[in-house]
Amino acid sequence: MARFYQSQPPSAPPAPEGYGWGEPYPAAPQTNYGGQTNYGYPSFPPGTPPNVVQSFQMADRDRSGFIDERELQQALSNGYQRFSLRTIRLLMFLFKNPMDPLRIGPKEFTELWSCLGQWRGVFERFDRDRSGKIDATELKDALYSLGYALPQSVLQVLLSRYENASSRRVELNFDSFVECGMVVKGMTDKFKEKDPRYTGSATISYDAFMSMIIPFIVQYDD
Amino acid sequence: MARFYQSQPPSAPPAPEGYGWGEPYPAAPQTNYGGQTNYGYPSFPPGTPPNVVQSFQMADRDRSGFIDERELQQALSNGYQRFSLRTIRLLMFLFKNPMDPLRIGPKEFTELWSCLGQWRGVFERFDRDRSGKIDATELKDALYSLGYALPQSVLQVLLSRYENASSRRVELNFDSFVECGMVVKGMTDKFKEKDPRYTGSATISYDAFMSMIIPFIVQYDD
Repeated sequence: MARFYQSQPPSAPPAPEGYGWGEPYPAAPQTNYGGQTNYGYPSFPPGTPPNVVQSFQMADRDRSGFIDERELQQALSNGYQRFSLRTIRLLMFLFKNPMDPLRIGPKEFTELWSCLGQWRGVFERFDRDRSGKIDATELKDALYSLGYALPQSVLQVLLSRYENASSRRVELNFDSFVECGMVVKGMTDKFKEKDPRYTGSATISYDAFMSMIIPFIVQYDD
Repeated sequence: MARFYQSQPPSAPPAPEGYGWGEPYPAAPQTNYGGQTNYGYPSFPPGTPPNVVQSFQMADRDRSGFIDERELQQALSNGYQRFSLRTIRLLMFLFKNPMDPLRIGPKEFTELWSCLGQWRGVFERFDRDRSGKIDATELKDALYSLGYALPQSVLQVLLSRYENASSRRVELNFDSFVECGMVVKGMTDKFKEKDPRYTGSATISYDAFMSMIIPFIVQYDD
């Protein structure tokens, strides 16, 4: 059986209703949503849930209309979960407008929020004992349910950095899960652009190949 | 005109005779070279110049028969040039035996030394005013003379991390030149494996694509 990424996630759950990204924050006044005293935020997509707009407004501490990496880190971190700056930068890089510097506006924030909500749902589904951690097999299944079927050898390399030095066991918290998964998503999305019919194979020029990879390496590593 | 990497460097100079990697160190006793009291180092390639063997022996401070990243950093750094640990790890990753952990033996050390000697020669050729720095145009020409013809957009991304924030000018010292160049070399070598006849285009499966890139990202970023 050919194994490659899926055109659609085979069994991704719907994003949980009212998933609580932003619940650590008090609700913003309703006048801030709906186009009245909107802080000048231009372009939330139509139908953006109010809690996402509120979260954006809470995150945008300097009222610039954009979220920078420190603001995003604060917005996504809470009492029991902290995101490393490395994961935050990876998220910014993958979701920001390619023309922008390292910051995201309302539209990109909404996409990121929705994606993380879906991933949180998947993570919790596989974290059966509610330990806040998943192991290597669960990561594989979780990525598969998000639409990514990776070769075992690649999974092993991905997981090597999270290995406990003595037990060699791997346990990923949500931060690490997002980091692993976003590396996979980022490169898979690039590949899909060259394989729009999902054949599992693509013909790529050298220039295109380098253009796909170098920005990812440079930005991610910064 | 199709622009892609060259099958052979079009104008790479021969590695300078007696290039002085290792000159900062006093010469090791000759008995350490030639198979007598060889510290048990097994496998220098036939014809390895004595100064490379000496450099290896000086670098291998714990006499383990292998060079780890700290040892390599010390061996390559000297009074006027220091290598960042990031560049060192990248070098280790690209030159080490894929089966080994992050360390290099005599054979890999010899290849690395020879490659760096060639790159140093190219760097110095383009650093015409002997400032120890080259600019963006010189980098492009230097990479071209090493056999790499990169799209301008990729070059710009590569250079963005070295930009002076105020002047937006780019100046690369040898450490940064090696870092940039090794990212290019690493990914180009991977691409060449899929394009052995140098057509400038390759058909790559998703699994192969991910297997080419993920180890590079994970190791480089560590």
